[in-house]
Amino acid sequence: MQTVRIGIVGLGNMGSGHARYLIEGQVKGAVLTAVSDVSEERLNWAKEKWGDQLHTYLTPGEMFRSGEVDGVLLCTPHYDHPRQAIEAFECGMHVLVEKPAGVYTKQVREMNEAAARSGKIYGIMYNQRTNPLYIKLKELISSGELGEIRRTNWIITNWYRSQAYYNSGGWRATWAGEGGGVLINQDPHQLDLWQWTTGLMPKRIRAFCAFGKHRDIEVENDVTAYAEYENGATGVFVTSTYETPGTNRFEISGDRGKIVIEDDKMTFWRLRQLESEFNRDNRDAFAQPECWKFDIPIKPGGTQHKEITQNWTDSILHGTPLLAPGEEGIKGLTISNAMLLSTWTDGWVDLPIDEDLFHDKLQEQITRSASASGKGGKA
Amino acid sequence: MQTVRIGIVGLGNMGSGHARYLIEGQVKGAVLTAVSDVSEERLNWAKEKWGDQLHTYLTPGEMFRSGEVDGVLLCTPHYDHPRQAIEAFECGMHVLVEKPAGVYTKQVREMNEAAARSGKIYGIMYNQRTNPLYIKLKELISSGELGEIRRTNWIITNWYRSQAYYNSGGWRATWAGEGGGVLINQDPHQLDLWQWTTGLMPKRIRAFCAFGKHRDIEVENDVTAYAEYENGATGVFVTSTYETPGTNRFEISGDRGKIVIEDDKMTFWRLRQLESEFNRDNRDAFAQPECWKFDIPIKPGGTQHKEITQNWTDSILHGTPLLAPGEEGIKGLTISNAMLLSTWTDGWVDLPIDEDLFHDKLQEQITRSASASGKGGKA
Repeated sequence: MQTVRIGIVGLGNMGSGHARYLIEGQVKGAVLTAVSDVSEERLNWAKEKWGDQLHTYLTPGEMFRSGEVDGVLLCTPHYDHPRQAIEAFECGMHVLVEKPAGVYTKQVREMNEAAARSGKIYGIMYNQRTNPLYIKLKELISSGELGEIRRTNWIITNWYRSQAYYNSGGWRATWAGEGGGVLINQDPHQLDLWQWTTGLMPKRIRAFCAFGKHRDIEVENDVTAYAEYENGATGVFVTSTYETPGTNRFEISGDRGKIVIEDDKMTFWRLRQLESEFNRDNRDAFAQPECWKFDIPIKPGGTQHKEITQNWTDSILHGTPLLAPGEEGIKGLTISNAMLLSTWTDGWVDLPIDEDLFHDKLQEQITRSASASGKGGKA
Repeated sequence: MQTVRIGIVGLGNMGSGHARYLIEGQVKGAVLTAVSDVSEERLNWAKEKWGDQLHTYLTPGEMFRSGEVDGVLLCTPHYDHPRQAIEAFECGMHVLVEKPAGVYTKQVREMNEAAARSGKIYGIMYNQRTNPLYIKLKELISSGELGEIRRTNWIITNWYRSQAYYNSGGWRATWAGEGGGVLINQDPHQLDLWQWTTGLMPKRIRAFCAFGKHRDIEVENDVTAYAEYENGATGVFVTSTYETPGTNRFEISGDRGKIVIEDDKMTFWRLRQLESEFNRDNRDAFAQPECWKFDIPIKPGGTQHKEITQNWTDSILHGTPLLAPGEEGIKGLTISNAMLLSTWTDGWVDLPIDEDLFHDKLQEQITRSASASGKGGKA
């Protein structure tokens, strides 16, 4: 194969965005050949905009079986991702799925299993993994520069969403329509980066979600979560959608100091020796290890969706390793599900979570959902 | 009375410090006339240093009854504060107690009751209440400048204490000797300021303390606490003693923006209108209220112990209102006790706490304490 023929499922904001840079030839080795959408109007709009050579389909399945595409980008509502991905894999497609991977880990696990059976290239649109800040952080941690991690703390409260935003689509911020709030809609990148950069998944989580705080919505829009890791480290994750300008500050404390990412800058307070070694040898009651403060240089660029699409295309054509393997989408989602489950059960949640229990609890929310009848089709 | 004759109980680090500025005449209207300490050696040292006119006593009670002092500064181990204060009040003394007020609220409540019965001037050494940063914060919040508070977040992890520090006194970091760790020894100021500046006491707390983390000690030296307030706001308090250089960052988010205190600076991101009003009237899905960022000017100075002693002296002589009334010492201690109790019971703690339950749980710790036999006398 010299060129990957790409089909896009779902021509909403994300799907149209991906189509645009593909049409403009910004992804080497990839060409957009087809789109599918439930709306005939959208399909006509796409043909008008991007030309008659574009194949259009009212269902994803038709596109998967058309012989016109080698790989698909799934840009549909969250709930639809696993089912559509499984169908795509069964049709021999490579798949690049938008985040979040899905709404609950049970369905995402099935998607991962289908991907493994297919042997196709399976990526997830974690474009923040191309952000040089987080690449650098991951590198500093994995190379041992920060020492063993002792604490993580992410305050990510700059996801301002007004009531007007929530009112702009009836499915928004409903259990039946979206399956969650800030955790599933705004935070998937941070929940992924929290574990990807540190290389640590929580061992257990205790979280406190508030639903419809300062907003007339069903789902969580305010979360404080506490995490414990296998190595004894602890973590805090705080997020909301009603604060403005809010905060995006990620602090990681390790045996060799601390790193803070804030305002798109990274600062490293680096100890000249490991704290654990200093502490072992020191005999002076009020001494502290010597510390140097650095502004870590960060390469410009990154974070663009097309970089993930390029990498996935390169993986199909040349076997390039994926920056964001689809299988890893379940990690951030597990953390997200655990936070809701801890709130619903008012207790600790051990990871990996009880997937059936989460699924049952989610179904309870959907059944109670004010918009369940109107939005059932989406789920 | 034209001059307050002051007696100091306990000539450790704090007691000697207070004696020094009093001897130097730095507190107008106050004169140091007496000291008491269990060590005859310390008393002789004091006479040598500060002159033979100084009355010295081996027990506080002798000093309280000597007729040589009008008011006393209690600078003894935490556990002793309430008992000694009660005796002082019964002897007609004014009392200024070092922080923390005590180790458990049950004993502190009895101290407060004795103070009220006595009608004497009762202060607590919360010298951080003279810090212009926190005075300004309290003023901005109480004047409504920040709007209704929605979230508080204090990361206070710059209390580095090495093993050498803990080894420097056998009573240190033991349940029998000190009755707690970072919460009772390092954090009393922050626990006080957290509620004093915001005017909010938590309604309930869920906290996660680790005991002897990276250190060979009995007590808590790593705490993450989540708080809920009556008005719906939430809070996080993170503290530890093994991180360096650590962080001291206090963020308060309100209906009119957010304030962050870090590196001795205060920044105010101020919305031109209340978020709640903007949200009510706004019809644009992605609009946000206009925000202006200010560096808030802070007066220099403050935080000195002698300012609290001066204020307490002025209150005795002239009826000046106290900056830090002794009765308020129970507030921060209640929060501190609640954090330990939540950890010990692995559940929510409603405030005010069950004082008897806390006392029982603390006694269990003391009984199990490795140093219980050696340190029982201190408690």
